[in-house]
Amino acid sequence: MDRFDQLTANGKVAALAGVGAGVALGAYLLGRRSGGAGLVTSSGRLVAGGWFTELGTLWPGQGLSIQIKKVLLKTRTKFQDLAVFESDAFGTVLTLDGVVQVTDRDEFSYQEMITHLPLCGISRAPKRVLVVGGGDGGVVREITRHAGVEKIDMAEIDAGVCEASKKFFPQLACGFADPRLNLMICDGIDYLRKAAEGTYDAIIVDSSDPVGPAEVLFQRPFFELMHRALKPGGAICTQGESLWLHMPIIEEVAKMCKDIFKGGTVNYAYTTIPTYPSGQIGFMICTKKDDKKASMKVPQRAPPGPGPMNLPPLRYYSAEVHKASFVLPQYATSALAGYLSH
Amino acid sequence: MDRFDQLTANGKVAALAGVGAGVALGAYLLGRRSGGAGLVTSSGRLVAGGWFTELGTLWPGQGLSIQIKKVLLKTRTKFQDLAVFESDAFGTVLTLDGVVQVTDRDEFSYQEMITHLPLCGISRAPKRVLVVGGGDGGVVREITRHAGVEKIDMAEIDAGVCEASKKFFPQLACGFADPRLNLMICDGIDYLRKAAEGTYDAIIVDSSDPVGPAEVLFQRPFFELMHRALKPGGAICTQGESLWLHMPIIEEVAKMCKDIFKGGTVNYAYTTIPTYPSGQIGFMICTKKDDKKASMKVPQRAPPGPGPMNLPPLRYYSAEVHKASFVLPQYATSALAGYLSH
Repeated sequence: MDRFDQLTANGKVAALAGVGAGVALGAYLLGRRSGGAGLVTSSGRLVAGGWFTELGTLWPGQGLSIQIKKVLLKTRTKFQDLAVFESDAFGTVLTLDGVVQVTDRDEFSYQEMITHLPLCGISRAPKRVLVVGGGDGGVVREITRHAGVEKIDMAEIDAGVCEASKKFFPQLACGFADPRLNLMICDGIDYLRKAAEGTYDAIIVDSSDPVGPAEVLFQRPFFELMHRALKPGGAICTQGESLWLHMPIIEEVAKMCKDIFKGGTVNYAYTTIPTYPSGQIGFMICTKKDDKKASMKVPQRAPPGPGPMNLPPLRYYSAEVHKASFVLPQYATSALAGYLSH
Repeated sequence: MDRFDQLTANGKVAALAGVGAGVALGAYLLGRRSGGAGLVTSSGRLVAGGWFTELGTLWPGQGLSIQIKKVLLKTRTKFQDLAVFESDAFGTVLTLDGVVQVTDRDEFSYQEMITHLPLCGISRAPKRVLVVGGGDGGVVREITRHAGVEKIDMAEIDAGVCEASKKFFPQLACGFADPRLNLMICDGIDYLRKAAEGTYDAIIVDSSDPVGPAEVLFQRPFFELMHRALKPGGAICTQGESLWLHMPIIEEVAKMCKDIFKGGTVNYAYTTIPTYPSGQIGFMICTKKDDKKASMKVPQRAPPGPGPMNLPPLRYYSAEVHKASFVLPQYATSALAGYLSH
């Protein structure tokens, strides 16, 4: 009995229909962890030609369904269930604990926005950047575009994610080859505890949802450590969940950030991305107190070029998109009015 | 054998898993029309407690899945399959030919944006407005906020949609009570053929996708008729599909509009909305040639108030959201550069 069967035996089940060439194959039980649902399984095996539905406690009663063309990998890393499958709709898809992390088709919007919003938004051109998480390599790829960056530290807890990305997502993992990268397989919080105060121009937190291994990355101690590790005027940009699904989480984090980043700025921006729940994801972006009073909402430099990897042109980010991404729907503007900077 | 069984017998099937209280119920065949997938059925009956997955030829290999709490209505109108069900995730959901049209939870973003973008964007305050489609009443509800509007003509082809909305979506259908409304159950194109030239300040097309009854609403003759029916400086705002899924359709429509709206403006804006494929939907917004050269991208008047229905405050639209909604991802800006106005 493998992990999926054990989980099923625990009474936690979800279901998904298999669709073949005009023939309904029936439903398959799938393993479910606290963070979401495992891939479609039948007796613990992934079902090629079936459908994957992303279920999660953070978006109950709904889920994106993706037709699977071929299962490429299904494994258990030291920390989580990892699967990779091919689909016609989104190309190659990587899931952790049954939750989509990255797909060929739409990864660029997330990677570009979580990276260039802070790196183009801070007042001084960034030289040293820390990435927490981001094991697929996409954020590092985008950082390599910035010619002025001298060193990229990266603290990813799960080597399995990096390995899978190198194998199945070469266009994401290309950044791993940049000589400026210092990749450390370690706990991001442990790393930040030891980091010298005032080290970083920017810290980018590319995490999974606040259920499972990434839960601590949404809590106060982690944000305090990040604040300490920033240079004055430096910025954090963290995966900040969805305005449509998680306003209570966003309000809580924004309130905490207002307190921690006193004298600096606290902002929230978002990007659209079809394979994340509700089709969008946001970023909490905060700067540490500084003499300069640059607004993160207005880019301080031009979008970066191709960098040493000779990357293709940016597909989502632009100076105009930068500014527009901080404009939130009226309901969110109202809910966050007390916490965000003007 | 009812319609769902007939369609299944035609070999067009899709599948969906039913999930009960921890027990997988198995997959159910569901009817599928060209426009999408019918609701979950087992021997032609909707399955309460199961899951609905929205499948469609315009978003192959993917679909939003919504857990059904209770099926409220399943019927065949004169034109299409109509179903209404309750869900925990999105409240009450209305589908046409198996495609989600409106849900309690997120309808406001679409209704506010498709209405106030044109009505706040045109240079003269609107007095006479035509709605094509929009049978759920949401667009009319939003138009009623505009105090200066004197007459609202509405051409909806399917009385069944209005009836279902009045019964299950009272917060959408409230606009039907406004004495300024002239509701006509008729074909929008037929109506426009007979309409006098230069009648309308704005025409809003709240249609389903360009497969099935709404297909003609994406084609040249319809756009030419709308152009003719507009006053100089008047605007159309049409449901314009998704930037993530339908760039070829959007490019085609933009190209056509550039030709038809010569001397005027052609623009594209979008809103986020979790229950539409890819989590967003766009609008093609064009103005008829005029002496004034107002840009639709900048609102010409303040967001409207509660109107005679004493509606709650706007939840999505604001002057800032108006401007930001015209800022497109870099890939779309590039693809549409030759067609959109500056």
